[in-house]
Amino acid sequence: MRSLHKKGREWRVGVAGLGTVGAALIDLLVERPGFAPAGGLATVTGVSARSRRRSRSAAISALPWFDDPVDLARSDANDVFVELIGGSEGPAKAAVEAALAVGKPVITANKALIAHHGAHLAVLAEATGAPLLFEAAVMGGTPAVKMLREAMVGDEVQLVAGVLNGVCNYILSEMEASGRGFAEVLAEVQRLGYAEADPIMDVGGFDAGHKISILAAMAFGRAPTFATTEVEGIEAIQPLDIRMAKDLGYCIKLIATATRSDVGVSVRVHPALIPLAHPLAGVRGVSNALFIEGRRIGRLFIQGPGAGAGPTAAAVAADIADVMTGAARPVFQAPARRLQPFAAMNVASAEGRVYLRLLVRDEPGVIASVTESLGATGVSIDSFLQKPVEAGAGVPIVLTTHAVAESVLNEATRRMAALATLLEPPRAIRIADV
Amino acid sequence: MRSLHKKGREWRVGVAGLGTVGAALIDLLVERPGFAPAGGLATVTGVSARSRRRSRSAAISALPWFDDPVDLARSDANDVFVELIGGSEGPAKAAVEAALAVGKPVITANKALIAHHGAHLAVLAEATGAPLLFEAAVMGGTPAVKMLREAMVGDEVQLVAGVLNGVCNYILSEMEASGRGFAEVLAEVQRLGYAEADPIMDVGGFDAGHKISILAAMAFGRAPTFATTEVEGIEAIQPLDIRMAKDLGYCIKLIATATRSDVGVSVRVHPALIPLAHPLAGVRGVSNALFIEGRRIGRLFIQGPGAGAGPTAAAVAADIADVMTGAARPVFQAPARRLQPFAAMNVASAEGRVYLRLLVRDEPGVIASVTESLGATGVSIDSFLQKPVEAGAGVPIVLTTHAVAESVLNEATRRMAALATLLEPPRAIRIADV
Repeated sequence: MRSLHKKGREWRVGVAGLGTVGAALIDLLVERPGFAPAGGLATVTGVSARSRRRSRSAAISALPWFDDPVDLARSDANDVFVELIGGSEGPAKAAVEAALAVGKPVITANKALIAHHGAHLAVLAEATGAPLLFEAAVMGGTPAVKMLREAMVGDEVQLVAGVLNGVCNYILSEMEASGRGFAEVLAEVQRLGYAEADPIMDVGGFDAGHKISILAAMAFGRAPTFATTEVEGIEAIQPLDIRMAKDLGYCIKLIATATRSDVGVSVRVHPALIPLAHPLAGVRGVSNALFIEGRRIGRLFIQGPGAGAGPTAAAVAADIADVMTGAARPVFQAPARRLQPFAAMNVASAEGRVYLRLLVRDEPGVIASVTESLGATGVSIDSFLQKPVEAGAGVPIVLTTHAVAESVLNEATRRMAALATLLEPPRAIRIADV
Repeated sequence: MRSLHKKGREWRVGVAGLGTVGAALIDLLVERPGFAPAGGLATVTGVSARSRRRSRSAAISALPWFDDPVDLARSDANDVFVELIGGSEGPAKAAVEAALAVGKPVITANKALIAHHGAHLAVLAEATGAPLLFEAAVMGGTPAVKMLREAMVGDEVQLVAGVLNGVCNYILSEMEASGRGFAEVLAEVQRLGYAEADPIMDVGGFDAGHKISILAAMAFGRAPTFATTEVEGIEAIQPLDIRMAKDLGYCIKLIATATRSDVGVSVRVHPALIPLAHPLAGVRGVSNALFIEGRRIGRLFIQGPGAGAGPTAAAVAADIADVMTGAARPVFQAPARRLQPFAAMNVASAEGRVYLRLLVRDEPGVIASVTESLGATGVSIDSFLQKPVEAGAGVPIVLTTHAVAESVLNEATRRMAALATLLEPPRAIRIADV
C-alpha cells in the first residue's frame, strides 16, 4: 500500500545562521548524516550568516557560502531550509517566506518569528504543501510542540502552564540562593554570557510570551497571537519578595499560562508565587518545565533543557527527521486559512489570590489605614506578615489575599497608593493557581 | 509539491476488545470524529469482543459485530484496525497479523504482544507498508513512545529509566502511608478492582518489563527482547524495608531501566531505593514517570497518568491521527529485517550500592559475624542501622554498602546465609543510580 517515503534519498540541508546552534547542528549532521529512522541521509549543502570572516570550524568553512539567506532559501542546491538567524522581521522572515514560496520544507528555532507571523507563514506553507516545523523554538530540546501537536490531539487541552525562560529562572534561583538583588544578578548573568547584551527580551517576559503564544496556538488550534498575550517581567521582584514568599511557603517563578475557560482563552506571562511542593517550584536554573492538562488525559508534566546549542540542534534534527517521513498535517492543528487569532481577554473579572508588598512609614495607625482600604473594596486578607524595620527604609508589610477579581484588586491598590503613609506604590504578585 | 494526505477522507476504524478502553475510544470517536488535525474523519465501522451478550452502551450495540477479531482485522469494511484484546498470544496476535498482512494500519495498546512479538510484527508491517503504532502500550496517556521514536532521533539515548507500573507504585505508596504489609495492601487493591485477579503480571514486574522492553527497543533501535529483560517484583518488600529506607533518606519504587554502556545495553526491572529528593520519588499512586537521557539533550523527564480508560483511549486516538498524516517510518527506528535483539547482559560485574536487610538472633557476636562475611568478600559498609527488637521476631539489621560488583555481593550474601545466627536469608535491594 505504502512505501517508506523517499527511502535512502539524500536530503540536502541549507542552514542560515551559524551561531552556536547552527554549528552544533552542522556537527551533528557531519557526524551522523544517517541519523533519521525514515532512512534518508541529511547533508548540509549550503550555509549563510551575517559575516563570512568570522572564524569557524574547517567543516563549516568548506561548505558553499551564500551571502544572502534568501538566496540560500530559494536555491535548488538544497531541499530543506533551516532558519537559525533569529528576529521576527528582516532576513529571517524574508528567507522563510522565500523557502515556503517555492514549496521547500522550513525548520526554524525562531520563536519571535512564529509568535508574530506564524499564521501568515502557515498560509504560505499550506499553499505550497511545504512543512513548517519549529520544535526548537520552544523549550530547546524538550519536545513541547510535538506533544501538543501530536500526542494531545485525541484530547481537548484545558491548560498549558510552565516555566519557559531559562534566564529569568536562573536569575530568580540565584536571587533566592544568594539574597542579592535583581540588577546585581542580571549583571553577573550578562558577564557570564547567559543573557543578551539587551536583556529585555528575557527579563521583560517577551521571550516566554513568544513561547506561550506558540504553545497556546498548538493547544487550542488558533493563530499564534503575541499581540494579545499579556506580558509582565521580573524586573520589579525584590529580594524581600523572595524571602517573604519563602516564609509563606512559596517561591517566585516567571510563569507562562494559557487557559481555556467558558469566556475564551487567556494567554499570560507574569511572575507568580508557587507553592514550594509544586513540581514547577523544583525547576532550577536554566531548566524549563511544562504542564499540559487535557480533559481525558489529565495532567502531563515535562521537564528538560530549555536552551543550549546541543539540545536545540537535536530538536532541529528531529524536525528534519519528521520532514523525511512525509507526514502531512496543518501547521497549527487546523487549516491555516481558517485559523482564528486569540481575542484580547478582559481579565478584570479573573479571580485569583494575590501577594501584596507594601512599604509604609513606621508610625501608628498605618496598618489600620491599609486594611481599611482593602476592606472598603471587599478584598479579604488571608495572611499578614510584618518584618522588622531595615535601616531607614520604612516598614515592609506583606499580605496575601483570598481570591479577588483583578478589577477589585486594582481599585484597592489605587486607594492604597493614595495613602500618605505608603512610601511606594503597592506591589502585587499573583499566587499561581496551576 | 505535497498535499494533505487523503484530506477530508473517512477513516473507518475497526475496534477489537470492548473493555473500558475500547468503550472510551468509541465514545471519543462518536463525540469528535473530526478530531484529527490532518483533516480526516474517524468513524467506527466494526467491533469485536469475547462476548456479544455483555451489556454495552447503545452506541456500541448499534455497531456491526464480528464474532472473530481476525475477520474484523481482515474486513474491507474498515481501514484501520485497533487491537485492545490483550495478551501476547491467541486472538490478539492472530488479528494483528491478519490486519498487517493485508496492509491495514494497526494500533494496539497491547504491551505483552509488542514486547514478545514486536520485531516479527514489524517485519509484517514493513512488508506491506502498514503502520504499526502502540503509544497506549506504555504509560497510558503519557507519550513516552512518541518521545523516543520521534523527539530523540537527533540525539543518542544513553538511559531510559522510570516508574512504569501504576499498581506496584500504588501498593508501595500505600504500604508507606499506612505501614501495612504487601499482602494486605494487594488484597485491598484487588477488592477495589485496580489489579487483576491474578496480580502476578503487575507485582511480579512483568508488566513493567514489557514496557521497558518496548522503550529500550525504541531508544536503541533494536528488537524488543522481553526474554533477556531481567525482572524482579515487589512481593518480598516488607514494611520494615520501607521504614528503614525512609530513615536512610530513601523511598522504595519499582524501577525499570535500560542503560547503554560500552559492553551493551542492560534492560531491567527491580525494586530500588530512590533518594527522597529525586523526581522519581515524587511519583505517587498510579502516576508513571520516565527519564530519558541523551548525549546532546541531557535529561528529559515526563510524568503523567500510566493507565485509565480516558488517557489510554486518547493515546490510541493520537495514533489514529498519526496514521492519517501518512508518515512513513520504520516501526522500531531501523528497518525491521535488520533489527538485532538485545543480548543477555552478564551483570555479574555491574557495580552498584545495595541495601541489605538481615534478621539475626538476639545474641552476642552476631554483628561481628555478619561484618566479617562482608569484609572477607570485599564488600564495604556505608551505613548501618539496628532497630529495637520486635516481639519474638529476631533483630532486624539494615546496612547499605558502597558500590559493589553483583558477583561479589552474591558471594557475600551466600556466606551470610550460611551463618547460624541468621534467621532468614539476607534480602538485598539495589540503591538506584538514576
